[in-house]
Amino acid sequence: MAKIKFADYLTMRLCELGINDVFGLPGDYNFKIVEAIERNADINWIGSTNELNAGYAADGYARTKGYGAMVSTFGVGELSAINAIAGCMAENVPVIKIVGAPKTKDIEEAVLLHHNLDNADYFAFERAYSNVVETTAFLNKKNAKKELDRIIDVMVKTKKPVYVAIPIDVCEIEVDDEYEFAVINSNFKNLVEAADKIIECIEKSNKPMLIADILTKRFDAQGVLNDFLLKTKIPSCSFIRGIDVIKSDMKNYMGIYSAKLSNKVCYDYLNSSDLIILSGCVLSDLNTMGFAYNFKMDEVIDIKPYCVSIMGKKYEDVLMKDLFKMLDKKLSYVSNESIIPEFGYERCSAPNDEKLTAKYIYPRMQEFLKENDNLITEVGIIPFGVMPMKFPSGISIQNQMLWGSIGWATPCTFGCAMADKSRRTILITGDGSHQLTAQEVSAMMRNKMKPIIFVINNSGYTVERILCDNVDYDYNNIACWNYSMLPKVFRGDCFVAAAKTNKEFDEILKAVEIEQKERMCYIELFTDYLDIPQLAMNMVKHPEQLMK
Amino acid sequence: MAKIKFADYLTMRLCELGINDVFGLPGDYNFKIVEAIERNADINWIGSTNELNAGYAADGYARTKGYGAMVSTFGVGELSAINAIAGCMAENVPVIKIVGAPKTKDIEEAVLLHHNLDNADYFAFERAYSNVVETTAFLNKKNAKKELDRIIDVMVKTKKPVYVAIPIDVCEIEVDDEYEFAVINSNFKNLVEAADKIIECIEKSNKPMLIADILTKRFDAQGVLNDFLLKTKIPSCSFIRGIDVIKSDMKNYMGIYSAKLSNKVCYDYLNSSDLIILSGCVLSDLNTMGFAYNFKMDEVIDIKPYCVSIMGKKYEDVLMKDLFKMLDKKLSYVSNESIIPEFGYERCSAPNDEKLTAKYIYPRMQEFLKENDNLITEVGIIPFGVMPMKFPSGISIQNQMLWGSIGWATPCTFGCAMADKSRRTILITGDGSHQLTAQEVSAMMRNKMKPIIFVINNSGYTVERILCDNVDYDYNNIACWNYSMLPKVFRGDCFVAAAKTNKEFDEILKAVEIEQKERMCYIELFTDYLDIPQLAMNMVKHPEQLMK
Repeated sequence: MAKIKFADYLTMRLCELGINDVFGLPGDYNFKIVEAIERNADINWIGSTNELNAGYAADGYARTKGYGAMVSTFGVGELSAINAIAGCMAENVPVIKIVGAPKTKDIEEAVLLHHNLDNADYFAFERAYSNVVETTAFLNKKNAKKELDRIIDVMVKTKKPVYVAIPIDVCEIEVDDEYEFAVINSNFKNLVEAADKIIECIEKSNKPMLIADILTKRFDAQGVLNDFLLKTKIPSCSFIRGIDVIKSDMKNYMGIYSAKLSNKVCYDYLNSSDLIILSGCVLSDLNTMGFAYNFKMDEVIDIKPYCVSIMGKKYEDVLMKDLFKMLDKKLSYVSNESIIPEFGYERCSAPNDEKLTAKYIYPRMQEFLKENDNLITEVGIIPFGVMPMKFPSGISIQNQMLWGSIGWATPCTFGCAMADKSRRTILITGDGSHQLTAQEVSAMMRNKMKPIIFVINNSGYTVERILCDNVDYDYNNIACWNYSMLPKVFRGDCFVAAAKTNKEFDEILKAVEIEQKERMCYIELFTDYLDIPQLAMNMVKHPEQLMK
Repeated sequence: MAKIKFADYLTMRLCELGINDVFGLPGDYNFKIVEAIERNADINWIGSTNELNAGYAADGYARTKGYGAMVSTFGVGELSAINAIAGCMAENVPVIKIVGAPKTKDIEEAVLLHHNLDNADYFAFERAYSNVVETTAFLNKKNAKKELDRIIDVMVKTKKPVYVAIPIDVCEIEVDDEYEFAVINSNFKNLVEAADKIIECIEKSNKPMLIADILTKRFDAQGVLNDFLLKTKIPSCSFIRGIDVIKSDMKNYMGIYSAKLSNKVCYDYLNSSDLIILSGCVLSDLNTMGFAYNFKMDEVIDIKPYCVSIMGKKYEDVLMKDLFKMLDKKLSYVSNESIIPEFGYERCSAPNDEKLTAKYIYPRMQEFLKENDNLITEVGIIPFGVMPMKFPSGISIQNQMLWGSIGWATPCTFGCAMADKSRRTILITGDGSHQLTAQEVSAMMRNKMKPIIFVINNSGYTVERILCDNVDYDYNNIACWNYSMLPKVFRGDCFVAAAKTNKEFDEILKAVEIEQKERMCYIELFTDYLDIPQLAMNMVKHPEQLMK
């Protein structure tokens, strides 16, 4: 045991979580935190262009590496990032939001310093955050270590964002460098009981089906779930938030559930199954194609991160990953189904000089994707173009189907790229979204990242044109940027190209295969202002018809 | 009296407040609000590039025209804007933040729709906002009109931001189109008593001095204060937030209070005065040059928007503007002081080929400014360069000396320009700040605004280099953009130029005089990474010495 400065204790704990890059902006109240990061050789300070972008980057980092962190200054900086952190709450992404606060003495005496409301209410911003994170802490010299340890434990357990404000002077106090990781175990009795009950249900069932979703991945149960499916061959599918949870070559895997649209086999199977097993599912509107399922929660096996409900009976303190491990070991059932999957775009026909459309973009993108790619799909139309694809193994795909904050994907891509430099990081975004956060491309360049960025330029908020009463309402138009010129403004080494036809897109992708090894690729794709994948058209226009 | 849709009632009330432009982004929960704006001929929908920028633009609009408004969608959009709205709270800028929310039925049934946290807690974001605005309202069909009227009354009375969430279905209900404006009057007895007491104090005083500040302007008392000073010739100065409150050619006006720095006459006068009169003052750190004054609050006359304290005795319900009007009428005192003001930069010497520095930029800018210009000064160094200037009459100057959110000034400039197209709108910003919100320049272009934008490119966060322990800490470096190329990305008609020497700057300003009549001007000024006005150097490095 040794005594170290609290700010160094903080960086040590971040490293322990695998956080080796911290995103943020410096400010006079957080210098001591940033300087502690700078002096720790295992952790890097990554300057972002603004705080919202830093939050989104920390989100992408956490999605890719397990945990993320961002630092901002008090008041102004922290509030700018709150949407990104709330997004982590909605999407179950564990990020620690660190705020540098004024000195304890100034706080106690309510001195009216800058970055304050005019009443010097120093806890107003923590209170604002308390509505959108799992827990908050405002440190002082007495509680600092205990409170930091507490919020880290909460983050690790819940995989949700947490908030901590650290006054300048608290950074400098000395603390012990020892701590204990909170270990979370299943209640063994409940675990065995639940597993036995599930085995009984499966063995009695004629047509079991498993739906996998995002929480399976967030709570580190993706591997054990895949082992379980590999052994039992139970027919399975995913919701779109869990798009990459099940290996796409898994026996009897039917792809992403998309109700009566592209994947009818999956829809029919799910709706005629006599036993539904949900693995880490979140039943929100877009994730379920507008609630297009007909099972009831008291008639299914609902496996959650820390509990399982079997036909309405709840077993507490059962960890999802322990449960799948036990099921894999105990269950001898093997499905004799042999479902021929009906997903994946057909191979592209030879590219021609026709105007580029979604009909060509997504099938061609399916061919372009490789093993272990990390693909970030911006909010809006794009996830619906990606959804019907058949993916190479080991792919990771990020979307934000619950929170749905346009602009998220560009900085998220930066975070993903920083988190794993060994993989290709690919972003597909649209012009309307890209404008919100485009400056983060410059942070990628400054840090020598080499993502492949596709910007679909369809002259505005196309998804909203489809959603609203009139596709030509002026409010869905946006400023008409010359996107291809942006990388020059940011002065980074970048392969830039633009495509207006199928053929041009095809040729650019071939060039990208080579260019992406050495530098960032930034590709503008021109499409019609109403061009949209069929699935998106159906989903956004008539979700209520997806079960009819 | 007629029945109209609630969304139309909303736009009618906005127009009544002089809000003819509403900033924001469309989203599926706010279409009905945006469409009501589009169908009202007196009010325009102004699409912003992101919600934070929309909030800052509404701030600039309200500073210039009295009130401002912004619209976002639920959850994602509203949280992105919260820093801008909190800034309005700190800086007393009346902006109505309007949020389009899901249908009442979905809210009541807690349906898990997109833009939600995963618990479908529909009031989480209103609660977050309640910490940073004066009041909030979440409308339903029963309370809609009453609650909207209430929050507008609060905004008008307090000149602070308010928040309203409007579910989709509430937009469509029918309401009466009549309403009453809440009229706020002084308590006449208190007003007379306070005025008489102040007159007695002034007549007894040998050396009265008035300090004007921002709330004088926000509460519409600028005109009556200037009338009062013109008649009484009482020596006066301003704090920096009230930089433009007193006409700069006012008799015995001593400019901006800057403690022992550039304006020693003012400092000595204030600290030897036997009667201090504060007009709408906010005694925060930067506004007072680090609390560099030696009066006590129970020894001054402290005139607030709705009350006055005279030597510690408080008179409630006395309106600042009524008080100055009455003092102007009743007081026969005329000061016989004849102070020769010591402010204003000396006229520039002939420009040469020396590297451009703050020493040349600000004096030359003083010459460039004209009557009725609206000058926006970004957070950081710039207000301290502008502070010692002598201004032409009728100038408006915007700063954010309490909230201090870097990036604020660029979108604020957009709002200022939209609010008054008859004046020149001039922005001085720095590279570090500009990167946070630079895309809003494209919104200015799309709306044919013609501001004059100066971007001081000093390779990073210069003010922070000075503030922190080591000017070369890496965390104060930023991505090195080619700013001059940005207007080309945004495809607007723009005069673009860059200066590295005094002479180049001088010549560019001459060209700008002509160019600005027809189009936007975007000027990049290269300075050294540690170049900073002397006043800023002293203020940020050793504020505690300003009284020594």
